[in-house]
Amino acid sequence: MELLKSPLAPANFPNMPAIDGVQLSTRACGIKYQGRKDVLLMAFDEGSTIGGVLTKSLTCSAPVECCQEHLKFGQARAIVVNSGNANAFTGKLGNASVSRTVAATAAELGCAKESIFVASTGVIGEPLPDERITSALGQLKSDLSSDHWQAAAEAIMTTDTFAKGASVKTQVGGKTVTINGIAKGSGMIAPDMATMLSFIATDAALSSAVVQSLISRGADLSFNAITVDSDTSTSDTVLLCATGKAGNAIYQDINAPELADFVSALNGLLRDLAHQVVRDGEGASKFVSIFVSGAESDTAAKKIGLAIANSPLVKTAIAGEDANWGRVVMAVGKSGERADRDKLSIAMGGVIIAKDGQRVEGFDEGPVAQHMKGQDIEVAVDVGICTGSATVWTCDLTHGYIEINADYRS
Amino acid sequence: MELLKSPLAPANFPNMPAIDGVQLSTRACGIKYQGRKDVLLMAFDEGSTIGGVLTKSLTCSAPVECCQEHLKFGQARAIVVNSGNANAFTGKLGNASVSRTVAATAAELGCAKESIFVASTGVIGEPLPDERITSALGQLKSDLSSDHWQAAAEAIMTTDTFAKGASVKTQVGGKTVTINGIAKGSGMIAPDMATMLSFIATDAALSSAVVQSLISRGADLSFNAITVDSDTSTSDTVLLCATGKAGNAIYQDINAPELADFVSALNGLLRDLAHQVVRDGEGASKFVSIFVSGAESDTAAKKIGLAIANSPLVKTAIAGEDANWGRVVMAVGKSGERADRDKLSIAMGGVIIAKDGQRVEGFDEGPVAQHMKGQDIEVAVDVGICTGSATVWTCDLTHGYIEINADYRS
Repeated sequence: MELLKSPLAPANFPNMPAIDGVQLSTRACGIKYQGRKDVLLMAFDEGSTIGGVLTKSLTCSAPVECCQEHLKFGQARAIVVNSGNANAFTGKLGNASVSRTVAATAAELGCAKESIFVASTGVIGEPLPDERITSALGQLKSDLSSDHWQAAAEAIMTTDTFAKGASVKTQVGGKTVTINGIAKGSGMIAPDMATMLSFIATDAALSSAVVQSLISRGADLSFNAITVDSDTSTSDTVLLCATGKAGNAIYQDINAPELADFVSALNGLLRDLAHQVVRDGEGASKFVSIFVSGAESDTAAKKIGLAIANSPLVKTAIAGEDANWGRVVMAVGKSGERADRDKLSIAMGGVIIAKDGQRVEGFDEGPVAQHMKGQDIEVAVDVGICTGSATVWTCDLTHGYIEINADYRS
Repeated sequence: MELLKSPLAPANFPNMPAIDGVQLSTRACGIKYQGRKDVLLMAFDEGSTIGGVLTKSLTCSAPVECCQEHLKFGQARAIVVNSGNANAFTGKLGNASVSRTVAATAAELGCAKESIFVASTGVIGEPLPDERITSALGQLKSDLSSDHWQAAAEAIMTTDTFAKGASVKTQVGGKTVTINGIAKGSGMIAPDMATMLSFIATDAALSSAVVQSLISRGADLSFNAITVDSDTSTSDTVLLCATGKAGNAIYQDINAPELADFVSALNGLLRDLAHQVVRDGEGASKFVSIFVSGAESDTAAKKIGLAIANSPLVKTAIAGEDANWGRVVMAVGKSGERADRDKLSIAMGGVIIAKDGQRVEGFDEGPVAQHMKGQDIEVAVDVGICTGSATVWTCDLTHGYIEINADYRS
């Protein structure tokens, strides 16, 4: 099945400048796909720190287990990524395959195994032909260059309909630093369990503890606040690497005022990448922002937001351009979080539809109906309990989703 | 939109005999639909006991709140049900409407208000024109008859494509008793949030405490073990009423050996009705039974089962007749319950596909592919931890679901 580029895709892949201390190369290794790049080597200069966020799935893949282990050391020299095979549900064979890839990469780069990270995305349950990766490492190493960001974003795609990248410049303690990130993911398509992967690099100098805190917090506000179909991959991996080449002073507290601009720029970049994943959601025709306020806590607000975002009835209503606030009420009710039915208010596109638990008197559907015809849909819910708030993002549920996931047989 | 009868519907509505102490009547009151019966009065002789299970939604409807309150008394003289308007998210107007309906029914029947139960299903957010019900009570009362079970099942339908009923005879302490039940529900269709309602009656003599225990336990194994689209209605209501006319001895312990046959018959009837709801699931083309074993507890097994049953990717794979065990693994992983990736086994249609965390060697897809083409799909998962088990039921996710929920505008 030929997938058409998502109608919600950005116009262009962004311009991504070189980052001092980061080099990339890609190669067509024939893991599964023929004639396209399917392996990415990201190499980092000595002294680079790393932090990451991994899938919470209890049936996670062998590469995720490796990342979990290596993140404890906080140092990175390389990330090896392949598309076409997720190396998931491959039992002990999967772990052996990861060990061989890590050992070969560490030998090639002359570094400790604990500084090598791996990620795999694609078909599950099939042994990964890791020799196709390890035998290409020499060539990958000699092809390393500080350009190649777009090629890198392309090499990690599976059923994505566009390559996803973002770049931003900001300041840390008076020094200009750059942050680049790439991502892939568009739901979970069989036979390719289309994992969400994202790799972000910066030349800022950051301790590994700070890198970990930054990515944990940033992912909560971005990758962990999006949902396409509520399904969690066995392989989701987000890694942030800091080379330190910008030579800024190191701050140990992520709340240090000198880090404020960086945190804000990083979170903006993560949100941009996360939005791109949603915009490539399977069959998506609308990008949906859901803002929940008035909840018992921010955590409760996020749970309510995800209950709305994951509701097939809410998602199909939006696909049908139907401002169906009743389905939103239903989703709030099923979230399990406290809400005051008689204080609940709901707005779409900035227009209040229901207030104090009832439809607004003399409600004029015109402006809301107009909003629902657009590509960017906004739903705001106040549950009338306290001051907790959160924003989550999703896409609609369309025939396209069924076509991709049911009509397509491998 | 004309809805075609579900391909999974039973051939016929069952023969439902009279139950001593139960009378029914229905009437076209024009709540929303024109020219079809939309109000049901179920009346019970004095001394009838009642128990019930209600939606856990925190934004539940006014009728649900009333049932919650009246169930504390355990006595029933009538259930008044309307279709066409759910009286949900109607604020204080909704509570006032319920109060008027309860008061008028209690006056008509000459009984305590606490013995009157109400249920409403249909469009939400619109005030219920309760005077159309209360003004018809005199006629409804004079039309009462011990037949009319099929008419009753029809009167409570909204977007159901077939009327749902079940009947069984069994023994309590040597006396023959009958259990009849009707149900409605097929997901949650806007503008009709198609609530799941079920009303069951028996002539057995049972204390109200026992009735409540029986329906709580029975619903856990039936109505609370099914899912069409993971969405929870604001109005779900299941009520079990026992008239005592069979004259059997009363047993206070639901585990009494004299009640064993009754419990088994009741649970079978509840399961039958719950299956009929799934078989009328929006767009359903396949009925799916999911059996989970090897879990930490029965509760954990049910949670894993529901994670599989609610996964859009599993449901679309089944719609596509694809024995996609990878998506089942994914759903196990996201359930949050313990599973041993390297001991997990998965079978479909009785054929083991994966064992000890890997696809079985030399796996022949033929028999499984044949099974997937059928209407009744069986998925069995053993998570390899302990002995907890559970069965849940669902249907597949098809273009029909999208058509009903997105393409249809009110």
